[in-house]
Amino acid sequence: MRSIVLRTMSVIVLGLAATRAASGQVSPNQGAKYIKEFGTMWTFEAPPLEYWKTRYGFTATQEWLDNVRLASVRLPNCSASFVSSQGLVMTNHHCARTCITAVSPPDSNFQELGFVAATQQDERKCPDLYVDQLQSIEDVTGRIRGAVTATVPAKQVAQRDSAIKAIQASCGRETGLTCQVISYYQGGAYSLYRFKRYNDLRLVMAPEEAISFFGGDPDNFTYPRYDLDLTLLRVYENDRPFQPKNYFKWSAEGAKEGELIFVTGNPGSTGRLLTVAQMEYLRDVQYPAQLAAYDRQLGVLRELSKRDEMTRRRLENQIFGLENSKKAVTGFFAGLQDSAIMARKRAFERDFRRRVSADPKLLARYGNAWTAIATAQKQLATLSTRVRWYTFTGSQLFNAAGSALRVVQQAKLADSLRLPPFRGDGLEQIRNMITGSPAPDLESEKLLLAAWLTSAKKELPATDPFLSAILAGRSPEVAAEALINGTKLADPAARKALVDGGTQAIAASDDPLVVLARKIEPLSRDVQMRAARLTDVISAKAELVGQAIYAAYGKTLPPDATFSLRISDGVVQGFPMNGTIAPYKTSFYGLFARSAEFDDKAPFRIPERWQRHADRITMGAPLNFVSTNDIIGGNSGSPVINQNAEVVGLIFDGNIQQLPNRFIYTDEDARAVSVHSRGIVEGLRSVYEAGRIADELEGRVPVSQP
Amino acid sequence: MRSIVLRTMSVIVLGLAATRAASGQVSPNQGAKYIKEFGTMWTFEAPPLEYWKTRYGFTATQEWLDNVRLASVRLPNCSASFVSSQGLVMTNHHCARTCITAVSPPDSNFQELGFVAATQQDERKCPDLYVDQLQSIEDVTGRIRGAVTATVPAKQVAQRDSAIKAIQASCGRETGLTCQVISYYQGGAYSLYRFKRYNDLRLVMAPEEAISFFGGDPDNFTYPRYDLDLTLLRVYENDRPFQPKNYFKWSAEGAKEGELIFVTGNPGSTGRLLTVAQMEYLRDVQYPAQLAAYDRQLGVLRELSKRDEMTRRRLENQIFGLENSKKAVTGFFAGLQDSAIMARKRAFERDFRRRVSADPKLLARYGNAWTAIATAQKQLATLSTRVRWYTFTGSQLFNAAGSALRVVQQAKLADSLRLPPFRGDGLEQIRNMITGSPAPDLESEKLLLAAWLTSAKKELPATDPFLSAILAGRSPEVAAEALINGTKLADPAARKALVDGGTQAIAASDDPLVVLARKIEPLSRDVQMRAARLTDVISAKAELVGQAIYAAYGKTLPPDATFSLRISDGVVQGFPMNGTIAPYKTSFYGLFARSAEFDDKAPFRIPERWQRHADRITMGAPLNFVSTNDIIGGNSGSPVINQNAEVVGLIFDGNIQQLPNRFIYTDEDARAVSVHSRGIVEGLRSVYEAGRIADELEGRVPVSQP
Repeated sequence: MRSIVLRTMSVIVLGLAATRAASGQVSPNQGAKYIKEFGTMWTFEAPPLEYWKTRYGFTATQEWLDNVRLASVRLPNCSASFVSSQGLVMTNHHCARTCITAVSPPDSNFQELGFVAATQQDERKCPDLYVDQLQSIEDVTGRIRGAVTATVPAKQVAQRDSAIKAIQASCGRETGLTCQVISYYQGGAYSLYRFKRYNDLRLVMAPEEAISFFGGDPDNFTYPRYDLDLTLLRVYENDRPFQPKNYFKWSAEGAKEGELIFVTGNPGSTGRLLTVAQMEYLRDVQYPAQLAAYDRQLGVLRELSKRDEMTRRRLENQIFGLENSKKAVTGFFAGLQDSAIMARKRAFERDFRRRVSADPKLLARYGNAWTAIATAQKQLATLSTRVRWYTFTGSQLFNAAGSALRVVQQAKLADSLRLPPFRGDGLEQIRNMITGSPAPDLESEKLLLAAWLTSAKKELPATDPFLSAILAGRSPEVAAEALINGTKLADPAARKALVDGGTQAIAASDDPLVVLARKIEPLSRDVQMRAARLTDVISAKAELVGQAIYAAYGKTLPPDATFSLRISDGVVQGFPMNGTIAPYKTSFYGLFARSAEFDDKAPFRIPERWQRHADRITMGAPLNFVSTNDIIGGNSGSPVINQNAEVVGLIFDGNIQQLPNRFIYTDEDARAVSVHSRGIVEGLRSVYEAGRIADELEGRVPVSQP
Repeated sequence: MRSIVLRTMSVIVLGLAATRAASGQVSPNQGAKYIKEFGTMWTFEAPPLEYWKTRYGFTATQEWLDNVRLASVRLPNCSASFVSSQGLVMTNHHCARTCITAVSPPDSNFQELGFVAATQQDERKCPDLYVDQLQSIEDVTGRIRGAVTATVPAKQVAQRDSAIKAIQASCGRETGLTCQVISYYQGGAYSLYRFKRYNDLRLVMAPEEAISFFGGDPDNFTYPRYDLDLTLLRVYENDRPFQPKNYFKWSAEGAKEGELIFVTGNPGSTGRLLTVAQMEYLRDVQYPAQLAAYDRQLGVLRELSKRDEMTRRRLENQIFGLENSKKAVTGFFAGLQDSAIMARKRAFERDFRRRVSADPKLLARYGNAWTAIATAQKQLATLSTRVRWYTFTGSQLFNAAGSALRVVQQAKLADSLRLPPFRGDGLEQIRNMITGSPAPDLESEKLLLAAWLTSAKKELPATDPFLSAILAGRSPEVAAEALINGTKLADPAARKALVDGGTQAIAASDDPLVVLARKIEPLSRDVQMRAARLTDVISAKAELVGQAIYAAYGKTLPPDATFSLRISDGVVQGFPMNGTIAPYKTSFYGLFARSAEFDDKAPFRIPERWQRHADRITMGAPLNFVSTNDIIGGNSGSPVINQNAEVVGLIFDGNIQQLPNRFIYTDEDARAVSVHSRGIVEGLRSVYEAGRIADELEGRVPVSQP
């Protein structure tokens, strides 16, 4: 579950009136019964107390819930938690990469070598890192709806966005807290989350990347797994360790087979409310195109990587990011191609629509949403080839030329009439991106542009005016060569002059990329505007679906993930795999086995420190484990706790079978993957000689004050 | 790949004239090019010399081929090979179960405890075990075709069978060898195989079953795997170790990643020549019914197993056999449900039929075979529910009653007019089965019969005459209870009296099962005879397809497996699995990992001797490995050799992805699973303290003569 870009913070929804039940406990008679397909990403506003009691015999008191909420914290891109009385914060290694690199001395690389602070004095401050602790939640759906008075969709969006900003700003002023409005149910409801922010985080311990990400891209999103994907940070206040009132104690035994466990954290984005038509569009149009684009880009980058070692290193992260995305989307795609999953989705939608149809009021308000979405998706599908290629995404400089022209042109329009990326803050961000990017590698530019044109040529008709204008009778390679050789836009100053010079500078430019952009931009704008109008319709209707889910099922269904704090119940459990059974846990034996079985080649190399200390390790000790908890990207770093709110593990991934859970929760073989709490202690003591930290986690000895 | 019943020795085919090319080397211009879907189970009559040369740059001399053929031997149910100059024979543990049990002393169980002969004097003779070594092959298609003069299909079968018997008998008389006629291409061709038989085999070494079958039913048919599925036997002649001229030497390094390797052995049965219509019948009719039957029987046996420990042990093997068959059929079924596999099959069939249609002579002779098969399969499908239930298979005693009646009745008919199971030797075998079986457990009888009737009731219409006659208005449980309580047939003497008494005894019996059988047998016979006529048509047309494959493609396609000696080329290679990569080999680390990860519970328990000697084991040494060789049940015990004809491994299974290879060979992720030769030596030396045997395998020291 590595670094899938979380787009949830900028979900665009349109405001339409909806009723919303009061927060609090779910009554068993209220609304429909628990629907498994919607999963268990419960909000702290509406924890499923009756469901937990019935299913597990577990009673969560308000005190338990408050403690769990306050012991959980959010990193900018991940989840984390307090795990000691002295402010230790546990998260994944892959969530703290930036800090680990930043605190590395010039002559060393903690990312590669690992880091253990021998004493508290050795803990190193992470620049610009913070965690947010959720203090309270307030339903603000009514306030936001009240502010939306316009009838034009794009104006409604602007009104809603400024209402949200106003709520957040006044909350910040009044409380001194960090405030954020969170949307539920595709904009069906809104809540204000108030956070206490901690700004002083220091690196305490990080393993070698070779062990935190053992198995690399091949094992990413899979299980059985053998990763110590851990980083320990510490929150400081006034240069002293912060002593949180709420933190998770350490479980002596760790996760046990069959045990009820909870995961708290911030799942980024799910699409369980999507209609069948939306899922079919993803399956038939968007994902195949997206996968082809990944392959095209990977092809170019791999080609470039062969040039020399420096280039290989420079592109390594980008290649990894693309491979990661490709693997994730391949999994989502596989889910949508699974007829059993689609059949479940259809069955749910039938039930949902029957409930809506059964009530004349609901029918009048929501009844046409599904058909309207389906129609718009179909129209979008017929446009999709042009939408995909009538862009400036072929290379960085090609993009700079098109964007420069658009920034100047779109700035003149009212916000609601602009192309979506240029609405709100978008225009300014794009301007900064154009003028601020360093000069790109021209060889990459040529290869990327040529590859992009080659693919476009395969998909667009021979007579296509957009593509013909670019190629002008040349082959993709020749055209790319000429355009990149001819342009001056590699120089950031040239780009700045162009954007700052406005309409006149654009019109006067004889830079071949600008000349081309002037010619083809109107063709592109026409197609993109038509697509934007269809997307607006889909968003508006999707919000109706979000409201309807309340009306039809009450509050029993957890809302889709929106990178906000959730608590998910689950059970520690293996699963059927590959004709046999995947065990509920893995072991240090397994780590050494997988390395030996790939002849100790990367990404299956065991780092030197681990080889050196191998004879100290209790090889049969648990290293990772799986459970049925409902997680997704953003949950990285989430603590796994037992009924006593003790740490039994640390979420770091899902298995490959879990990827389709983006659309429908399943637990036949979908599993969350965690580092086992005993594996953490075993690693700290046997390999890292970090008894100080292990003792603190286990609460064994009083921690000395600096 | 455990003990799938090999039915290949009794393939029923009908004789029709066909031409056949002469044996020998394949010319690259002769026939069509290599077709991957048909796999690589090459005969020693037509080894693909050109193909090996082109694909691997490997030249097999006649000397190489002769040596490999003579070093390979066949057990009654498995494959094996000579692996030392002193007559050591290597096969799988699961191929030698009977011997291992037979040579165990009364107070011990070598199956469970393992066995190592400390000296040659301690090697123990296996009763009734032999191996056959293939001396020569002769094409006898013409002789068999010449003997078939009848026009009635069933008479043709009889003529062909007696021609085969005559050929085998005269060959035996003339040569003193063991002779067997082997059919290729569904009866499209026949060859006479002459074997030298070795009757004195002694047990040298067998590991504990817990390690030879580590992972049990869950890991059966899967990989990664950690099994030492090995037994070493020794051939004796005149009470002294036999010194074979041809044996496989031991490779120093064993199987290496990417290496070309060969498997020689006796694959039991494949269905790659089946038409699409035949495969669809399996998919839509036969396999679903078969799987339901396994589940029904397993349900009853598991219920019975709960009674007491003795019953559990008594039923253990039967349960294992059913689970094994269920897992295999589930895999075959999955293959047929795989649209990609079916699409390949359809594409091949189109090509095949186009070739036939292109030649008027072929068209006239074979053109209608596919349609005729499809029509017959469709008719069989409409009959299938009754064919399945209008039987006496509900329980052992119910079956005895029906069979007794039929033995008496069918004996009066000419062979070709009988129901298929009663033709040839069948009638006598069934008679012996009826009179020879011991008294069954009556509780099991009732449960089995009740479960069978319950399932029948679900599938047959309420008014069905066959079922109504059995139930007579009672529930399945009550009917089963009454029938089994009332019958005297549990006593073998009663059964013998009934069969020996003939028509009169049957007519006079007032045993409730016999009374019932008299009533329902005619209904059953009518349906079964209609089915038999359709099956006869399918067999006859299938033989035409077999002949057509020669005509259309020449001898380049290896024939379907028929438990006769084949040589398959392949490469040592991991495969994509579960979202990641399965390594080409596993290690002893992996064995201990899998055990630890299941908390050392059966079937993942490591035997005591292995735990005791764990610290001596080189944990990173290879234990099992995978390759793309084309194998199936019957190949168990096959040697895996490199280009120098040295042993690099020992076949013991295929992975779950290989099961669909029954119908079409694939190598994307289908793999053969072997014990690694280094794993064998590591186990012998470190765990079994069997340096004597390891040295002999490695050819290290001269073996002392007894």
